[in-house]
Amino acid sequence: MRFFSDNAAAVCQPVLDAIAAANSLDTAYDGDGWSAQLDDRFSALFGTRVRVLWVPTGTAANALALAALCPPYGGVICHREAHIQNDEAGAPEFYTSGAKLMLADGDGAKLAPDTIEALIARIRKDVHQVQPHAISITNATEYGCVYTPDEVAALGKLADKHGLGLHMDGARFANAIAHLGCTPADLTWRAGVDVLSFGFVKNGGMSAEALVFFRTDLAEASLYRRKRAGHLLSKGRYLAAQILAMLDDDLWLANARAANAAAALLAAAAGDRLVYPVEANEIFLKVSADEASHLRDLGFDFYDWGVGEARLVTSWDQTEDQIRPLADAIAAL
Amino acid sequence: MRFFSDNAAAVCQPVLDAIAAANSLDTAYDGDGWSAQLDDRFSALFGTRVRVLWVPTGTAANALALAALCPPYGGVICHREAHIQNDEAGAPEFYTSGAKLMLADGDGAKLAPDTIEALIARIRKDVHQVQPHAISITNATEYGCVYTPDEVAALGKLADKHGLGLHMDGARFANAIAHLGCTPADLTWRAGVDVLSFGFVKNGGMSAEALVFFRTDLAEASLYRRKRAGHLLSKGRYLAAQILAMLDDDLWLANARAANAAAALLAAAAGDRLVYPVEANEIFLKVSADEASHLRDLGFDFYDWGVGEARLVTSWDQTEDQIRPLADAIAAL
Amino acid sequence: MRFFSDNAAAVCQPVLDAIAAANSLDTAYDGDGWSAQLDDRFSALFGTRVRVLWVPTGTAANALALAALCPPYGGVICHREAHIQNDEAGAPEFYTSGAKLMLADGDGAKLAPDTIEALIARIRKDVHQVQPHAISITNATEYGCVYTPDEVAALGKLADKHGLGLHMDGARFANAIAHLGCTPADLTWRAGVDVLSFGFVKNGGMSAEALVFFRTDLAEASLYRRKRAGHLLSKGRYLAAQILAMLDDDLWLANARAANAAAALLAAAAGDRLVYPVEANEIFLKVSADEASHLRDLGFDFYDWGVGEARLVTSWDQTEDQIRPLADAIAAL
Amino acid sequence: MRFFSDNAAAVCQPVLDAIAAANSLDTAYDGDGWSAQLDDRFSALFGTRVRVLWVPTGTAANALALAALCPPYGGVICHREAHIQNDEAGAPEFYTSGAKLMLADGDGAKLAPDTIEALIARIRKDVHQVQPHAISITNATEYGCVYTPDEVAALGKLADKHGLGLHMDGARFANAIAHLGCTPADLTWRAGVDVLSFGFVKNGGMSAEALVFFRTDLAEASLYRRKRAGHLLSKGRYLAAQILAMLDDDLWLANARAANAAAALLAAAAGDRLVYPVEANEIFLKVSADEASHLRDLGFDFYDWGVGEARLVTSWDQTEDQIRPLADAIAAL
Repeated sequence: MRFFSDNAAAVCQPVLDAIAAANSLDTAYDGDGWSAQLDDRFSALFGTRVRVLWVPTGTAANALALAALCPPYGGVICHREAHIQNDEAGAPEFYTSGAKLMLADGDGAKLAPDTIEALIARIRKDVHQVQPHAISITNATEYGCVYTPDEVAALGKLADKHGLGLHMDGARFANAIAHLGCTPADLTWRAGVDVLSFGFVKNGGMSAEALVFFRTDLAEASLYRRKRAGHLLSKGRYLAAQILAMLDDDLWLANARAANAAAALLAAAAGDRLVYPVEANEIFLKVSADEASHLRDLGFDFYDWGVGEARLVTSWDQTEDQIRPLADAIAAL
Repeated sequence: MRFFSDNAAAVCQPVLDAIAAANSLDTAYDGDGWSAQLDDRFSALFGTRVRVLWVPTGTAANALALAALCPPYGGVICHREAHIQNDEAGAPEFYTSGAKLMLADGDGAKLAPDTIEALIARIRKDVHQVQPHAISITNATEYGCVYTPDEVAALGKLADKHGLGLHMDGARFANAIAHLGCTPADLTWRAGVDVLSFGFVKNGGMSAEALVFFRTDLAEASLYRRKRAGHLLSKGRYLAAQILAMLDDDLWLANARAANAAAALLAAAAGDRLVYPVEANEIFLKVSADEASHLRDLGFDFYDWGVGEARLVTSWDQTEDQIRPLADAIAAL
Repeated sequence: MRFFSDNAAAVCQPVLDAIAAANSLDTAYDGDGWSAQLDDRFSALFGTRVRVLWVPTGTAANALALAALCPPYGGVICHREAHIQNDEAGAPEFYTSGAKLMLADGDGAKLAPDTIEALIARIRKDVHQVQPHAISITNATEYGCVYTPDEVAALGKLADKHGLGLHMDGARFANAIAHLGCTPADLTWRAGVDVLSFGFVKNGGMSAEALVFFRTDLAEASLYRRKRAGHLLSKGRYLAAQILAMLDDDLWLANARAANAAAALLAAAAGDRLVYPVEANEIFLKVSADEASHLRDLGFDFYDWGVGEARLVTSWDQTEDQIRPLADAIAAL
Repeated sequence: MRFFSDNAAAVCQPVLDAIAAANSLDTAYDGDGWSAQLDDRFSALFGTRVRVLWVPTGTAANALALAALCPPYGGVICHREAHIQNDEAGAPEFYTSGAKLMLADGDGAKLAPDTIEALIARIRKDVHQVQPHAISITNATEYGCVYTPDEVAALGKLADKHGLGLHMDGARFANAIAHLGCTPADLTWRAGVDVLSFGFVKNGGMSAEALVFFRTDLAEASLYRRKRAGHLLSKGRYLAAQILAMLDDDLWLANARAANAAAALLAAAAGDRLVYPVEANEIFLKVSADEASHLRDLGFDFYDWGVGEARLVTSWDQTEDQIRPLADAIAAL
C-alpha cells in the first residue's frame, strides 16, 4: 500500500461519471455550459461574489495567482518550505516574469506575522532591493499543518497594512476546512485572502483545479494569462464538469474528511513519533532506517524525509480497514 | 449541427475507456506505466528514436517546442496566419521569454522556401535586428491545406542551410497524414522536422497532445520547462492513457480519415465556392451573408470568415448521413 | 565625410564641459544634485508636471516606456518600419516580458488613425488574440518625416477611445520640434502622449536620454524597472549633467536646427530624387548604384537603403560649408 | 568627508581625458576603433584569449553574465549577501528570464566548497526542483574580503564536477588583485572562472565596466543580449576609451592600491572594532550609536550597517592626508 502522495490516488467515481456525462458536442474552451456555472457555484460556496478559472494543475493555479498579485520587479513572501519555492520548478518566476520569492521560516511550514514583519523590516525601501508585493501561504501546509481563520486573518491584516496581496495555495484546502469545521468564507476572503488555489486533484479529481478570485478585478487579466500559458484547454468542459461533480453534495468535503480520518488513525498510532501535529492528511514520523525498512517489508511505501524521518500521505479513498494494518505496524515499532 | 471547430467535438469512446481503465493507484506525474510507454510507441510509429512528452493543449506543445528551438533574443519564422501568431495569445513569446515571430505570406497559410529566403535576406546580420533561429509550419495548415513530404523537405533543407530549427504544429497532423497517405516519418524527421506537436484533442482526444522530439537532445530541458509551465499534471497517467488509446490500431488515423471524408463530401458539393483546396477537415466557402444566413436557418452553425466567406470544420464523429444534408444545402445555394 | 548616422557624430562641447564640471564627489545613483533638477527643468520645458528618468540609450528609454504601458500579455501597435520593431533587437519584448508588436503601414513610417482602426478591427476581442494596450509612434520618424501636433492629437484621441497608452519615440524629437516650430507641449501631452523618449545622444549628447512621463503615475514603477535592467548608473550625475547642459539656453533646439538645416540644403539639391519629404535630418535619395559609387568616390559615406536608394543623415555639427560639397555633388549627378 | 561608497567618488583625470580625446566622428555602437582594441588588450592582460564587452553598469555586466551561464529554468548559487541577490533589484531574474538565485552562507560573504556541496545535496535531481547551472562569487566580496586563487580554484573544481558555470562579480576585482599581488589570470580563468564582471566605475571610471568572457563561445549570444537590454550605447567609443585609459600603465591597479591603502590605514586604527579582515577597500566597524554620531559630528559620513556596526568605503582618490583624521578619530573612540 502506497503513501507517497495523494497525487497518486485514483479518481473518484462521480468525477469519472461527470466526465462521461459531459461527452457531447459543446462550445470549445470555456464557453460551455459547465464552465459557465463555476462563478455562481463558487460564489454560493463562499458566500460572496467570486470569479473562478479552471486550470489543469495546482502549479498553474498558484503561478497565475502570483502573476496577478505581483509585478515582474516585485517579490512574494512565502515559507522556505513552500511548494511554490521547492516543488514547482520555478513556475512563480516564469509566470511573474521574474519576481523573487522571499523566504521566511516558521514551524510546520507556517508563516507568522512577526517573522514576516522582520523580513519586511530588513528590506530597504529603495529601488536597489526587490520590494514585496504579495504573501503566499499554503493551507494545509506542506507539513500537514493548518492555519486557523484567526491566523490567516492576522496575516491578512499584515498584508493590508503593507499593501501586499494575499494568496492561499489550497492544494489541500479541503483538508484544512475538514479539520477546522469552519466555513470556506472564514478561512479565505473574510480573513483577507485575495486569491485561492482550490485544489481538487489531490482530493479525488483528475485534472482540474479552481483558481478563485475574491478580488474579482484580478480575474480578467488572468483569463489572458491562462490562455497565454497554454492552460485554456479546448475541451474545457471536461474540467469544469469535474469541479462541479466535486462541489455536488460537498463531495470535496467528504473526500477530505476521509483522508483526514485515515491520517488521524495513523497519528494516534504514532504518538511521540510525530514531528508535526497531524491536522490534515500528511503524517511526518520519526523512524530509524531500520524501522522504515521494516514498514516497507510489510508492504507500505512512503518517502524518506531527510534522515530519520518519513512522510506518509493518506488519500480520499483509503478506508479504515485499509489503514489499520499500517497503524498497527507503526504502533508496534 | 455545428461546424465551428473540431475542438468542440466529443471525445471518442476508446479514449474515455482508457481513462476509466487507468483509474487505479499509480505513480504521480509522468512516472507511471502509461507515460513510460510513450517513447517506445512513438518511436515505433515514426521509425526512429524519439522522445515524447504529453501536454494538455496544443498551445503548450507549440510553445514548448519553440522554446526548445529559439533563445529569448531570437526569432521564429511563421506564416502570418499561423495559429501561434493569431490564436495562442502570445504563448510563443511567453515560453521563449520574448522571442519575436517573423511573419511571412503564402497561399493557404503555407510557407514556401522563396518567401522565407526573401524574409531572411531582408534581415541584416547584426545585433540590432532579431535573427531567426527557427521556422514553424502548420500541417495541415490553418486553411486546411497540406504540405507534402517534398514541400516540407524543401523547408527542412532551407532550415538546415541557415542553421534554423524546424517545428511542425501538427494540431491536425493526423488529417494531413490521412490526406497524403504517406508515413509519419516521411512528413517529419525525414524531411528535416526537429519537433512535432502531434495533436489528438481535435481528433477525438480529451486533454492530451504529444510533443515529439526527433532531436532527442532537446527533450531533457523541455521536461523542466513543462513542469515550470505547470503542464506536468500530477495524474499524468490519464493523459498518457488517452494517447495510447489513440495509437492503438491507428485510431488516430481512422478518426482523421472520417473527418477528412466528411470535409470531402462538403467540398464536392461546394465546387467553385471553395476558397482553398480541401485537403484536410476544414472548408472555406465563398458565401453571401444571405446564403450564410440561410444555412444557419437550416440548423448549420459555423464561423463567418471575414466578409463573404465562411469556415466549416468537420470532426471525427460526423458520419456521411449527418453531413449529407449540409452538402445538399450547399449545393442548392 | 560621413552621413551614416547622427549616432556617429561627436559630442558637443557644452556636454563635455558639463561632464567635467560634474566631476566631484556626490551621492551615487540618482541621488545627486544634477539628477534632482530634472523633474523641474522638464516640467518647465513642457509646461506641465512631469517625472523624468535618465537612461543611457534610446532603446532603454523606449523599452521602459513600453513596459510601463503594456502588460506581458498585451500588444503595442507600431509602424512596420519602427525602430522598436527593426533596430532594437527585441528590447520591447524583453522589457515587457513578451508583449507583441502589432505592425501597421503608412507612408514615411507614419501611422494614421484609419490604419490603426483597421488593425484594431481585425483583432477579435477574445482571449485567444493578443489585445493592444498601447500605440508607439516615432517623431521624427525613421524616414525623417514629422507628425504635426494635429496628427499626434488624432492618434491620441484614438488611443483614448480604445483605452490605449500612447508612447512617442523621440530619438529625434528635437528635430521634429525644430521643424514644426511648435511647443514641446503641443507635440506631446496636449496631443495625448503619455510617455516620451526624449533623445539627446543623436543631437550632441554622449550617453544620456530622458524618459519623460506625462502620466506621472507610471514613473514610480519605472524607477524599479530601470534599476532592474541595469540602467541606474552609479555615477548618474554625469548623465544628468549632460541633459541639463542640453536644456540650458535651448541647446537641444539649436543643435537640431543645425542638423535640419544641413538636411534641407541636401534636400534642395536633391529635388526629384527625394523619396520622402525632408522634414528633419534624414534624407532618402533615389540613386543608382553608379551614382552612389560616384558619391562615395568623392568622399561621402552613407548607407544604401535597399536597391536604388540611399540614406543620409546629417548631424548637429555639420556646417553649411561642410555640407555644400555634397549638395553640389548630388545636384550634379 | 564621505565614506558611503566608492560609487560616489569622482572620475580620475585620465578617464576624463580619454573621453575628451575620443570626441571625434567615428563609427557608432561598438564598431569604433577604441572598442576594437578591447579583446586584444584584455587578452594580453589575462594571458589568454578573451572576448570583452563594455557595459555601463556592474548590474548589467553581472546580469548578462548570468544569462550566458544559466537557462531560464535553472538556478545560480550565490551568497545570501551577494550584490546580485540584494542590490540589483532582480536584474538576474530579469536577464535570465526567471532563473532562481540559490542562497548559501559563509563568513565575510564568501562561499566555500562544503557549503555549496551541502546546498546541492539538498536539491532533488528531478524536474520539480530548480537545478543549479552556475555559481556566482564576488571578489572582493560585499564585506571587503578577498578570495585567494586557491579558494577560487576550489570552487572552480566544484563547479566543474557538477557541470556548473562560474561567474565572478569583480566590481572590486582591482582591489582584490591589489591585495593579493597575484596575476589576473591566477584569480580567474586558471582557477576555473568562465565569465568576469571587471569593474572600473568604483575605481575611478565613469560609466564603463568590462564583461570578460574566458569561455569565448559565450560572447556571441551576449552581444545580442546586450543590445536587446538597451546596453549597446550608440556612442560606445566613450565607454571603450574609459576602459583603455584604465588599462594604460595599469592605472586600474594603481587606483585600487590607493583605495586599499586608505582602507588599511583605517583598519590599523580600528583594531578590535573590525568585523571582518580588511583586505580591500571596505571597513566594517563595531561602533555604538553614540560613537557613530560622534564621528559624523566630526564630518565623516558613512552608512550604519544594522545595529552597532558601520560600513566605510574608501576610494581611489583619498590620500593618506585625507584619511588620517578619520583614522585618528576612530583610534580615539
